[in-house]
Amino acid sequence: MKIMVINGPNINMLGVREPDVYGNTAYSDLENTIEEYAKNLGAEAIVLQSNGEGEIIDFIHHALGSCDAIVINPGAYTHYSYAILDALKAVNLPAVEVHISNIHKRDDFRKKSVTASGCIGQICGLGIRGYLLAIDYLLNEMREEDDN
Amino acid sequence: MKIMVINGPNINMLGVREPDVYGNTAYSDLENTIEEYAKNLGAEAIVLQSNGEGEIIDFIHHALGSCDAIVINPGAYTHYSYAILDALKAVNLPAVEVHISNIHKRDDFRKKSVTASGCIGQICGLGIRGYLLAIDYLLNEMREEDDN
Amino acid sequence: MKIMVINGPNINMLGVREPDVYGNTAYSDLENTIEEYAKNLGAEAIVLQSNGEGEIIDFIHHALGSCDAIVINPGAYTHYSYAILDALKAVNLPAVEVHISNIHKRDDFRKKSVTASGCIGQICGLGIRGYLLAIDYLLNEMREEDDN
Amino acid sequence: MKIMVINGPNINMLGVREPDVYGNTAYSDLENTIEEYAKNLGAEAIVLQSNGEGEIIDFIHHALGSCDAIVINPGAYTHYSYAILDALKAVNLPAVEVHISNIHKRDDFRKKSVTASGCIGQICGLGIRGYLLAIDYLLNEMREEDDN
Amino acid sequence: MKIMVINGPNINMLGVREPDVYGNTAYSDLENTIEEYAKNLGAEAIVLQSNGEGEIIDFIHHALGSCDAIVINPGAYTHYSYAILDALKAVNLPAVEVHISNIHKRDDFRKKSVTASGCIGQICGLGIRGYLLAIDYLLNEMREEDDN
Amino acid sequence: MKIMVINGPNINMLGVREPDVYGNTAYSDLENTIEEYAKNLGAEAIVLQSNGEGEIIDFIHHALGSCDAIVINPGAYTHYSYAILDALKAVNLPAVEVHISNIHKRDDFRKKSVTASGCIGQICGLGIRGYLLAIDYLLNEMREEDDN
Amino acid sequence: MKIMVINGPNINMLGVREPDVYGNTAYSDLENTIEEYAKNLGAEAIVLQSNGEGEIIDFIHHALGSCDAIVINPGAYTHYSYAILDALKAVNLPAVEVHISNIHKRDDFRKKSVTASGCIGQICGLGIRGYLLAIDYLLNEMREEDDN
Amino acid sequence: MKIMVINGPNINMLGVREPDVYGNTAYSDLENTIEEYAKNLGAEAIVLQSNGEGEIIDFIHHALGSCDAIVINPGAYTHYSYAILDALKAVNLPAVEVHISNIHKRDDFRKKSVTASGCIGQICGLGIRGYLLAIDYLLNEMREEDDN
Amino acid sequence: MKIMVINGPNINMLGVREPDVYGNTAYSDLENTIEEYAKNLGAEAIVLQSNGEGEIIDFIHHALGSCDAIVINPGAYTHYSYAILDALKAVNLPAVEVHISNIHKRDDFRKKSVTASGCIGQICGLGIRGYLLAIDYLLNEMREEDDN
Amino acid sequence: MKIMVINGPNINMLGVREPDVYGNTAYSDLENTIEEYAKNLGAEAIVLQSNGEGEIIDFIHHALGSCDAIVINPGAYTHYSYAILDALKAVNLPAVEVHISNIHKRDDFRKKSVTASGCIGQICGLGIRGYLLAIDYLLNEMREEDDN
Amino acid sequence: MKIMVINGPNINMLGVREPDVYGNTAYSDLENTIEEYAKNLGAEAIVLQSNGEGEIIDFIHHALGSCDAIVINPGAYTHYSYAILDALKAVNLPAVEVHISNIHKRDDFRKKSVTASGCIGQICGLGIRGYLLAIDYLLNEMREEDDN
Amino acid sequence: MKIMVINGPNINMLGVREPDVYGNTAYSDLENTIEEYAKNLGAEAIVLQSNGEGEIIDFIHHALGSCDAIVINPGAYTHYSYAILDALKAVNLPAVEVHISNIHKRDDFRKKSVTASGCIGQICGLGIRGYLLAIDYLLNEMREEDDN
Repeated sequence: MKIMVINGPNINMLGVREPDVYGNTAYSDLENTIEEYAKNLGAEAIVLQSNGEGEIIDFIHHALGSCDAIVINPGAYTHYSYAILDALKAVNLPAVEVHISNIHKRDDFRKKSVTASGCIGQICGLGIRGYLLAIDYLLNEMREEDDN
Repeated sequence: MKIMVINGPNINMLGVREPDVYGNTAYSDLENTIEEYAKNLGAEAIVLQSNGEGEIIDFIHHALGSCDAIVINPGAYTHYSYAILDALKAVNLPAVEVHISNIHKRDDFRKKSVTASGCIGQICGLGIRGYLLAIDYLLNEMREEDDN
Repeated sequence: MKIMVINGPNINMLGVREPDVYGNTAYSDLENTIEEYAKNLGAEAIVLQSNGEGEIIDFIHHALGSCDAIVINPGAYTHYSYAILDALKAVNLPAVEVHISNIHKRDDFRKKSVTASGCIGQICGLGIRGYLLAIDYLLNEMREEDDN
Repeated sequence: MKIMVINGPNINMLGVREPDVYGNTAYSDLENTIEEYAKNLGAEAIVLQSNGEGEIIDFIHHALGSCDAIVINPGAYTHYSYAILDALKAVNLPAVEVHISNIHKRDDFRKKSVTASGCIGQICGLGIRGYLLAIDYLLNEMREEDDN
Repeated sequence: MKIMVINGPNINMLGVREPDVYGNTAYSDLENTIEEYAKNLGAEAIVLQSNGEGEIIDFIHHALGSCDAIVINPGAYTHYSYAILDALKAVNLPAVEVHISNIHKRDDFRKKSVTASGCIGQICGLGIRGYLLAIDYLLNEMREEDDN
Repeated sequence: MKIMVINGPNINMLGVREPDVYGNTAYSDLENTIEEYAKNLGAEAIVLQSNGEGEIIDFIHHALGSCDAIVINPGAYTHYSYAILDALKAVNLPAVEVHISNIHKRDDFRKKSVTASGCIGQICGLGIRGYLLAIDYLLNEMREEDDN
Repeated sequence: MKIMVINGPNINMLGVREPDVYGNTAYSDLENTIEEYAKNLGAEAIVLQSNGEGEIIDFIHHALGSCDAIVINPGAYTHYSYAILDALKAVNLPAVEVHISNIHKRDDFRKKSVTASGCIGQICGLGIRGYLLAIDYLLNEMREEDDN
Repeated sequence: MKIMVINGPNINMLGVREPDVYGNTAYSDLENTIEEYAKNLGAEAIVLQSNGEGEIIDFIHHALGSCDAIVINPGAYTHYSYAILDALKAVNLPAVEVHISNIHKRDDFRKKSVTASGCIGQICGLGIRGYLLAIDYLLNEMREEDDN
Repeated sequence: MKIMVINGPNINMLGVREPDVYGNTAYSDLENTIEEYAKNLGAEAIVLQSNGEGEIIDFIHHALGSCDAIVINPGAYTHYSYAILDALKAVNLPAVEVHISNIHKRDDFRKKSVTASGCIGQICGLGIRGYLLAIDYLLNEMREEDDN
Repeated sequence: MKIMVINGPNINMLGVREPDVYGNTAYSDLENTIEEYAKNLGAEAIVLQSNGEGEIIDFIHHALGSCDAIVINPGAYTHYSYAILDALKAVNLPAVEVHISNIHKRDDFRKKSVTASGCIGQICGLGIRGYLLAIDYLLNEMREEDDN
Repeated sequence: MKIMVINGPNINMLGVREPDVYGNTAYSDLENTIEEYAKNLGAEAIVLQSNGEGEIIDFIHHALGSCDAIVINPGAYTHYSYAILDALKAVNLPAVEVHISNIHKRDDFRKKSVTASGCIGQICGLGIRGYLLAIDYLLNEMREEDDN
Repeated sequence: MKIMVINGPNINMLGVREPDVYGNTAYSDLENTIEEYAKNLGAEAIVLQSNGEGEIIDFIHHALGSCDAIVINPGAYTHYSYAILDALKAVNLPAVEVHISNIHKRDDFRKKSVTASGCIGQICGLGIRGYLLAIDYLLNEMREEDDN
């Protein structure tokens, strides 16, 4: 099983960027942690990042046919990218949205997600573990389906 | 370790209520699933339910001193109970908000959570598994803290 | 046939409370009027009142299995209790919302009903007779269904 | 006693128009049902229909002096015709607003009634029986007044 | 003379809850301070607390006949409980709303009071002394009325 | 010189309708007053009334070629008839909007005029004299233009 | 095949009205152009115009049974006539909305169409050709359907 | 009879300021025109101007006892000075609000008058003649009252 | 100890202005009552009034260095003067806002205070006694501070 | 004559994506249909697609000098890309906006077009034929201009 | 060349007022810095300050004829003084608005400037240097114009 | 010292695009003017442009380590790109936002800047000189810091 993990704008700055909000883990550590976690569960995680709205949509389109599920942290695009929402609905793969910080505790504009309705669900505020729990959930679901 | 799991209004109707939204699991099964899951991880989960806003606040107050963390699904109170938010902030225990359905895919009033900012984070749309992932996260966090 | 008539907050103060808005009938007279009216039509009306949001939800849950229909005046909860709305949808019994005063002629916040969309319809402004017309309607509907 | 029953735009299409919302009764059947119901109660019902906002206002003006009360279903004008509201307030006859469907369960624009504040009250969602309950109420009220 | 002092949700957590906002006084000290203050002025203060919206409404109803005035701190219910507003208007006793913190200096949702329009006035931001000033005012008013 | 004076919905009820708002003058007296006033100033006033939005637009279209100016009181259509606004702009005659009552002192919806921007100006709150002042202004303007 | 072409308020003023917005073509030329265009395509176009909201609803009702499709330019009613929307939905004929000018480039209120959701689609800003393109589309669609 | 005519901020710049909106008349000519007009009607007009909100309130207070009526053009204060509104209500003299330009044809913020509800009515868009019509109206009203 | 008491626009009209809202006490009586009350408590009250926003700001600036605390009733400026708010924050003296009437029971625009967040707290609706309670509170606070 | 046809995000998924909304035509078929249609009319259509906002702006800039007109379907960017609007206004070429589905019949956020005001007009809901009608219109316009 | 530099309410408190926002420079130092900066560039700066809205308008009026340009920091009036906006438009001199702090980083009400549209442009957040850059710009512009 | 100057979407069209708003200077002239201006002050300016949101974020990330400060004109992204705001906050370099036109004088959506709160301040409306003043300011600040 193969899961595409897509990180949006500024997440490549992890560790550098506002450490009181996002923590001190470097972005390369995030990639490693996710890849190893998936490997340990007998799956493969492909971790991608882009600051561009169009490229993120390209990633989602490419997932169709090459991956079984998507974990996505659309960064600030979460709050206004109807184009990413449309992409998620177009490929119609099982997807979970993840946010490192609790978006309900920050600026008003961060409380609303326009992309979450293209996903099964959303995990926020649980730090980097949010990615792992999302993978956990998706593998579990897909294996249950395979069993039926 | 002891986790209080609080279910708000109408969640006792699980299995009866709008099964296309909330699934067919009966409420007593939800209780059992959660309790066993915690036991398997060497912890204790106390599962409570009330339809009353005041009683939920009472539960939260009682958690202080008797439990180490809270998992809460405030039901429809999620969207307007500033009193529950105040209670969560008053006891200041680690808490995770859980919703069975994806609140971003339903009525507009369900997209906004006033209680989530009293929690560490929120998991939604992942069905009953959301409770288990929340317990997972909280035990992990508390054990790491204990190690330090 | 059995109809549960649920009165929300402050309706127990009828006759005492703002008589120019709600009239001079005492609450106990309201109870009697409703019960006798139902009896004359060969049915039974169970009239309940509570000031608590949670208790009203409890009443609605208890109606499932014990009553055939609901008449509900949620008082001020009409305008913000998504929890009562969820309860009405959970039990899915035929229900009619009643208001003694014309909510369209009063404060702005009273013009919007969040609970009415959990009911078949709503009657407002027709005073205490509104309860009787609601019972009339529900019995008529249920008997027609029985005939089919 | 004489009651003017005014039906607004598109109600003449009853039976043809969106049957899942408005039911299968033909408009002529609605007229007959109302007229007979009134006759059985020893009163007279005059049932009128127009698609024109101005003509509906003319009907209301003509009611002054020729009828004792009004039952009105202003159709879509309910939601924006301040001119019909002004007409109801100008003649100042006892009036009840009726809607066949539950306006609280449909499009947002249908939840607001600008005409209801020119009436004693409103009945919605109870289908064609709503008209009969309104007549019931008005005759009852007027007879009580006559007794005093 | 007898004054009912009603404290709403989370105020029982005084001293424990967000001390930088609400101070260090324990709730039992608040009770004592108020009771003694009233006694010194030749009056009696009955101090009640509940986290439940319905119970607070019950308290207000019970005040009618047993007390001469009300001092109320509705906690977070201040901002959305139209049901408590209706209760205050129903009993129509002289009432003063009190808030320990300055609600105009905190979250936006705390700036609006829906219950204050059921009271003579409101005192906020003056800490625990706000309760004493309210009692002061009410006794003064009632004694002046007695003199006329 | 010829001025068309157009009265909108419910203005024919003058004298009957809410006399504390609109005064006791009968509508026929309004017609006479306006006609005589114009005659005394050496002009002719044609006073028309309709409850229908379409007919009012017809009047405005007919004014083009047959009259030199328009005085219009669009009644409640003032607040939502973009169609009347378009008609006024289509004929492009000098026009003055008149309201008998002070629309700034009444319901919120009456404070906004969508038709006024198709006129030179607006007079409100000066009772029936408002019509005469409008005629005064229009004749004055047109004569000044003739002199140049 | 027969298409009813309905023109709403002020469109009869074409050529006279704001020529920089609507162009110099006279209304009678519009009628001729449409009728000939349809004839050349082997169909019949019936071109109607009214300034009255009620009459336009009457036209729509009459189309049912006598015509196969509707082209409608509701003029300013486009922006607020929920009654015309209801009429279009009641008859459920294939309909295309046409506007001569680009409603997105003008006043804010002209950007919103409440009637368009009762049609298959909308053409705006393409001048008089918009009507011809709409007829083109409708005939094409209907013939395709006939072929199946 | 004595009328105080109060001009608000920037009206002293008349003739200099945006002449396409406000015309070419100099402010001193406005003063003379008003004073002579009043004199010809056997009355006295006292014309005052200030750019300060406080001074305008002072003027209104001084009118009480020294003048019989007020004509006021509050300039831009029209749109936000609740303090001037309170002053007009405090002295409770007959007052008419005047605007030289048609406030309904300009910026959105100019369409709303918060001061007009402290006046009998408002005249706008009729240029400098608006002041004369207001005086006309006030003298007429006061003389009629004197006759009774 | 010295307290500056600042009264804003129209408060000098006390006794003359809307007596059903503000009572019959003359403004000079208010001044005397406040001054004597302070004297009896061993302090000095300097009572100032102005209708001008700028002068009120001047008063506040002058308080810095010459007074120990401020009691302010900003009248209608309460609702829009961000400049007075800035002045209060600039001098940073202990301040209490007072309103004679209950601002929550009046017009909507009076419910919001932009100046209160520059004060310790606010007292409203307690009539003239509100000023005395504010002085009481401020002296008490300052003496406690002195004791520490 | 050369027309640039620009397709925005997710339109490359045509045939795969939500077929009940967008139909079954594959994207490559859309390209062919458009190109052939133009060729038959003696013109050339250049069909481009990108998921990136910046690339779409690049396309528009490149059209200046190389093409005579633009047909654009900005996909979800329609609803928030002020940058694309600015690009359309920058190059100032005749442009028509096309939407395959009727945006007035879908989610609220799809009803508003921020890009349409940079175009001559908009066609929506007419499926793929919308592109062809747009080309038709643009060629017609340009040839008429050439004739003059 | 002569430039009038106008400072609005509370700017005279510079150095005293919220130093973390506005810095420690005393107001007199601001005056000196500006005057010397202008002198060094061969121009004259006249620095004025007032807390009163009316006086600031007076300053602006006086600038006409006596100065060549205006630099204005309207303080909190920036956010609501349409009267100052009108004054700037009335004198029509080149003007630049300056704010010491970055208004986009503070309270919501400070993000909107109603006065800036009466100026050529605005500089904010660059501290006291903002004044000097504004003078720089204005002298540059005026000298370029003189050269032509 | 090295300053990165970033220009957003459509700024490369300078000279071509809406010259009445943005002037006639070609984009290459803007580049030269900025580069020379910096060189004359002994610094280096690197001028970049992109129409893509992602690329602009890339530029900002690259500035970290390679440049000392940023001048940014985000074009239309100013008004909705929370992703660019996050990028500016992530790198935390001194930055000044520049707009060629006065954004307070144009469309409503241009009045709000979501990116400005990631900068020290903003300069708008001063044309191309705005870039030069921003460089001026940044060099001055950095040199002062170097001196300390």
